[in-house]
Amino acid sequence: MSKPHEHRVRVRYGETDQMGVVHHANYLSYMEDGRTRLMADLGCSYAELERDGFGLPVRRAELRYWAAAHYDEVLVVRTSVKGMRAASVTFEYEIHNEAGTRIATGVIELACVNLKTEERKPVALPAELRSLLS
Amino acid sequence: MSKPHEHRVRVRYGETDQMGVVHHANYLSYMEDGRTRLMADLGCSYAELERDGFGLPVRRAELRYWAAAHYDEVLVVRTSVKGMRAASVTFEYEIHNEAGTRIATGVIELACVNLKTEERKPVALPAELRSLLS
Amino acid sequence: MSKPHEHRVRVRYGETDQMGVVHHANYLSYMEDGRTRLMADLGCSYAELERDGFGLPVRRAELRYWAAAHYDEVLVVRTSVKGMRAASVTFEYEIHNEAGTRIATGVIELACVNLKTEERKPVALPAELRSLLS
Amino acid sequence: MSKPHEHRVRVRYGETDQMGVVHHANYLSYMEDGRTRLMADLGCSYAELERDGFGLPVRRAELRYWAAAHYDEVLVVRTSVKGMRAASVTFEYEIHNEAGTRIATGVIELACVNLKTEERKPVALPAELRSLLS
Repeated sequence: MSKPHEHRVRVRYGETDQMGVVHHANYLSYMEDGRTRLMADLGCSYAELERDGFGLPVRRAELRYWAAAHYDEVLVVRTSVKGMRAASVTFEYEIHNEAGTRIATGVIELACVNLKTEERKPVALPAELRSLLS
Repeated sequence: MSKPHEHRVRVRYGETDQMGVVHHANYLSYMEDGRTRLMADLGCSYAELERDGFGLPVRRAELRYWAAAHYDEVLVVRTSVKGMRAASVTFEYEIHNEAGTRIATGVIELACVNLKTEERKPVALPAELRSLLS
Repeated sequence: MSKPHEHRVRVRYGETDQMGVVHHANYLSYMEDGRTRLMADLGCSYAELERDGFGLPVRRAELRYWAAAHYDEVLVVRTSVKGMRAASVTFEYEIHNEAGTRIATGVIELACVNLKTEERKPVALPAELRSLLS
Repeated sequence: MSKPHEHRVRVRYGETDQMGVVHHANYLSYMEDGRTRLMADLGCSYAELERDGFGLPVRRAELRYWAAAHYDEVLVVRTSVKGMRAASVTFEYEIHNEAGTRIATGVIELACVNLKTEERKPVALPAELRSLLS
């Protein structure tokens, strides 16, 4: 993709911790939101993908925290596809606040698995998803 | 039951909010922990119950917050069965800190539903569970 | 208020549980979002209120769960002021999905406390907030 | 340290997602629990550290997810100190289930900051903490 997808989230009160900033685990949820909105905007609903028997569990996550975010701030989550392999896709993220300060960045790799088997074996990305993400 | 079941949880950092205390939503998780440990200690694993096709979703919750709890405090969750109906069970909770201060109390009613039907219709509590909880 | 305030939230993946529906604790967050957006739309930022030394911790919550909500559904949170006392305010909530099905309802009472004292003693609602919520 | 610190956590219901497994964001909380228990067992309470004006916000996290964990499973979190610099400490994690299956591994770097300044500037690790972690 030429330009990253943009999604906005507003920080919830319960997402802060006693340091007065967003607790670091929440960025994984903001990024998850980012990639499902990216997929939805491309015409591929992750909810439908699961109904078709494909799951995309996270296999690897690398996160960098650059600055703190605070309650009620609006964060801009920029998501782009970093790469695809036969049975995985990797997304890249940049989260800024509205003042333009870089808050967090990340790289998250998702495996594609067959939800219809007990062992959830890796399976090739569905052709349609692959083509939409290209 | 003559005596409430006791379960201890230690407050996690991410469970606090910027007011410096446990965020109120977490007490629902502590209480959920309390009742699943009560059931497990009586010999009925909730995980197995679900594998047998029974679910116990929450239908009603009443919570009172009496005092704040803080990071790293150990909370004592006292759980007892308040009552049962054909297709529901109600638990009662008292949460204290180790100094004996009352932190939160609650009453939570769970419906018993059939997980094997799409609509998850109410269904009688399994006889074994009913007898264990009596 | 003549008409309840409306706020929309989209269910996140991590807010579901293994029953395939939104975990019941998350509704407390959706309702918290609802009342802070109501206050913000009336011109009173809860973040500023805290900076001025006032906190609104939850003292009591009553929740009813009517139907399940699912991943990626948009929920409409209707919030209204049910009543005020000298040092507390009570909000009422109705959450529907976009098809109009009632998902959850609740009543949540918040104490008004002085964040600048160690004991966080109850304190009268700031006059401006009281007048905005009337 | 010659041997990693061990801490056990039991998976909560609300920590699962609709894929029927632990949602990936929760491992950051399990690891946070691991390092605060390690510190406490060495005689250094993180709660006290904050009261003394030192904070340890997460600056970087690398996570690998090897296998799924399930509701009610007990997970063994092994934490060790990977290294220290003037104003940061890096922990390493291995999470197994009780059957010995490797579930997740991670490396998390924490900055040491001065909580008493508005900007929370980096500051040298307190000597006592540095010596305990060595």
